[in-house]
Amino acid sequence: MFRTVLIANRGEIALRVARACRELGIRTVAVHSTADRDSAVVRFADEAVHIGPPPPRQSYLCAAAVLEAARRCGAEAVHPGYGFLSEDPDFAEACAAEGIVLVGPPPEVMAKLGDKGSARAIMKAAGLPLLPGSLDPLGPEEAHALADRIGYPVIVKAVAGGGGRGMQVVTRSADFPEVHRRTSATAQMLFGDGRVYVERYLRSARHVEIQVLCDAYGNAIHLGERDCSVQRRHQKLVEETPSPGLPAGLAERMGASAVAGARAVGYVGAGTFEFLVDPDGGFHFMEVNCRIQVEHPVTEMVTGVDLVQQQLRVAAGERLGLTQDDIRPRGVSVECRLNAEDPERDFAPTPGVIEEFVAPSGPFVRVDTHAHPGYRVPPNYDSLLAKLVVWAPDRDAAIARMLRALDETRVTGPRIATTRDFLRRVVDHPLFRAAEHDTALVDRLLGAEAVAADR
Amino acid sequence: MFRTVLIANRGEIALRVARACRELGIRTVAVHSTADRDSAVVRFADEAVHIGPPPPRQSYLCAAAVLEAARRCGAEAVHPGYGFLSEDPDFAEACAAEGIVLVGPPPEVMAKLGDKGSARAIMKAAGLPLLPGSLDPLGPEEAHALADRIGYPVIVKAVAGGGGRGMQVVTRSADFPEVHRRTSATAQMLFGDGRVYVERYLRSARHVEIQVLCDAYGNAIHLGERDCSVQRRHQKLVEETPSPGLPAGLAERMGASAVAGARAVGYVGAGTFEFLVDPDGGFHFMEVNCRIQVEHPVTEMVTGVDLVQQQLRVAAGERLGLTQDDIRPRGVSVECRLNAEDPERDFAPTPGVIEEFVAPSGPFVRVDTHAHPGYRVPPNYDSLLAKLVVWAPDRDAAIARMLRALDETRVTGPRIATTRDFLRRVVDHPLFRAAEHDTALVDRLLGAEAVAADR
Repeated sequence: MFRTVLIANRGEIALRVARACRELGIRTVAVHSTADRDSAVVRFADEAVHIGPPPPRQSYLCAAAVLEAARRCGAEAVHPGYGFLSEDPDFAEACAAEGIVLVGPPPEVMAKLGDKGSARAIMKAAGLPLLPGSLDPLGPEEAHALADRIGYPVIVKAVAGGGGRGMQVVTRSADFPEVHRRTSATAQMLFGDGRVYVERYLRSARHVEIQVLCDAYGNAIHLGERDCSVQRRHQKLVEETPSPGLPAGLAERMGASAVAGARAVGYVGAGTFEFLVDPDGGFHFMEVNCRIQVEHPVTEMVTGVDLVQQQLRVAAGERLGLTQDDIRPRGVSVECRLNAEDPERDFAPTPGVIEEFVAPSGPFVRVDTHAHPGYRVPPNYDSLLAKLVVWAPDRDAAIARMLRALDETRVTGPRIATTRDFLRRVVDHPLFRAAEHDTALVDRLLGAEAVAADR
Repeated sequence: MFRTVLIANRGEIALRVARACRELGIRTVAVHSTADRDSAVVRFADEAVHIGPPPPRQSYLCAAAVLEAARRCGAEAVHPGYGFLSEDPDFAEACAAEGIVLVGPPPEVMAKLGDKGSARAIMKAAGLPLLPGSLDPLGPEEAHALADRIGYPVIVKAVAGGGGRGMQVVTRSADFPEVHRRTSATAQMLFGDGRVYVERYLRSARHVEIQVLCDAYGNAIHLGERDCSVQRRHQKLVEETPSPGLPAGLAERMGASAVAGARAVGYVGAGTFEFLVDPDGGFHFMEVNCRIQVEHPVTEMVTGVDLVQQQLRVAAGERLGLTQDDIRPRGVSVECRLNAEDPERDFAPTPGVIEEFVAPSGPFVRVDTHAHPGYRVPPNYDSLLAKLVVWAPDRDAAIARMLRALDETRVTGPRIATTRDFLRRVVDHPLFRAAEHDTALVDRLLGAEAVAADR
């Protein structure tokens, strides 16, 4: 096992990784921007290195600064968490060139899957079902012609996108050229790559993803599915496992598909295959996330497997100590992302100082958070404050427990607002309770309110 | 199900019960002494009633005050937690007379099991193995003669005792009369009942207990064992399940014994059968605890069963929704009791204000606590600050996780000391790691230190 691991991230996931390292006896080095100088992981880690000012480009996204820190502290491996440099093949290459292990798939696999067009082509060849769309990036006219053939609505997505960013829905042919142009421009700005592709858009679908885990010796398993259908503008808010109300056997077929896809591309490490499930029970591959996901705890709660420890073991060259038969999910787990955002002001982030911070606890509640009383939410990063996770034998009990956990949660501060009450309404919503929701639930909920407010 | 439950307790267990009620949709009424006016459960409960000044006899032990509060708020049931009135048959009778359900076994069962002599007689008749000793309270001379026949060491125990209080070991015949007299006097003071009995004392034993759950219709199951061998002066410090290193099949035999004993006495609710296991693998019934135990979370962690919710369901007259086959423990759970005590000063309680309170969290960590930054530890009650509970697939991983959790824990205050570092040393001790410890581990550890310090 590694002696020293550098954690190239911040917030709750940096602490999550540090905890896994500590339990494995690995020395941890936290890097931090000036804004995160007093953060929980800086206190918890064995060593902390300042890598730059608050803007991500000058700190957490600055590969050179991270690598320099890794060199100086003698880290044998870097855990990138999610976001930032976690899916950047150039960073992966740079680590490899330095003889530092990046916890994740090999750089060439990351590159192939990071290009959503190439990922679609590989998975199609591996037998995974895809939504009608393009495998290669197309010019504006070709793309428009394809969209017309597919039929509307379609979705235009950045080839270099992922995680719900750089995509837009088109509902009629006349709007296509403008949306195509705009999405491409946005993608150029966000990812430095303006290429886009086109896919059929499902108005009513479930977002269901499969967690896979693979070692470097060809062993690959899946750890069941996560349902992440509760989204606002393609950003996940509530996640759960198992996916409620799927047709019998579907999750198993999706799991087998994901394992086949992982094998086809030579995947190593923990990864997530994202699918859409249509109302008829058809499933459609969307993309692979080459990193630990925000919502990984729900899988841990039902399987008992520590995914971050598994990532580290596999990255250190260990063989997978688990077979598919060892994965026996039990019960139901639900996660809510508590964000420092104001639902009354279109979910605008609310940076500032937290005065009182009470996290829920007690039976079958897990909280992953870096926040604490006196914590200053910086304006420079995402607004995730805490992940509230519950487990229960069945979904009704899990919902009751999540509502209890949300009731216990208290975050106050002169300028702080959180999504707590909004999450409470979503989890308590009859459609969510009945598992009759789809990815449009939240936008419909908010849209209906906007209409009601307009009256 | 009940509409309103009054929680006749304080601290972490009051909050634990309130959480269970909330998840079941039950309205909660917290009672509190003046010292607990600002406690977490007072904030969390739907209603709070002040029942008296800080001394327990005038508040949490005052049956009349608790009953008056229950009457006034229309509670259909009272959950007594542990300690205080939880095993007082007179209180159980008084509740019954008022038509209020006390969550626990029927008063007559509580009375039979509360008298340790009668409990031993019933369990002996039910076929449970007992250590050599008396079934009835004996006078000083008879007791001495019996002790001489059994052979030393013996232990003198209060008939009305339990929970590790009111007992003393005698190592040689000459000391017997004096210890007998002193134990009887102490028992008279503590329990208002000076009767004592005599039992063989095992120098090297494991404390292993079985959790049972029974409904009012004759259904009884057990939820496996807990090992509570890490004790200081008969007070448990660290608990775990499963009990490591028991001979194959022993835990199952003990479970079956406990269920037989529960049936024999007509037990209803959650209860615990406490046994000693000798180095040869023999097990010996000690007593039954007619309440939820401090250490119940480790059982919850491996079984997924919410024991407090089960208590409430059974008390409300529901049939047990679980069969023995539903109980499939998974992995290992360990609990540490974090006390506000100073190990440097013979574990003297350290009441006072907590300034900083950081509880561990993250993967597979559960914390049951009523403490928070700014909390004032009152001098009037037990010194339990928090229960730190972890789960892992195996014992080594659970120990690593507990050490990580202890490392994260931080409690500061001008006069506050805690057992954190002491717990860390116990959990990290080679004998504990190897599961070669017995109930004498802590006393030996402290004794060895005392000897070393004297040199």
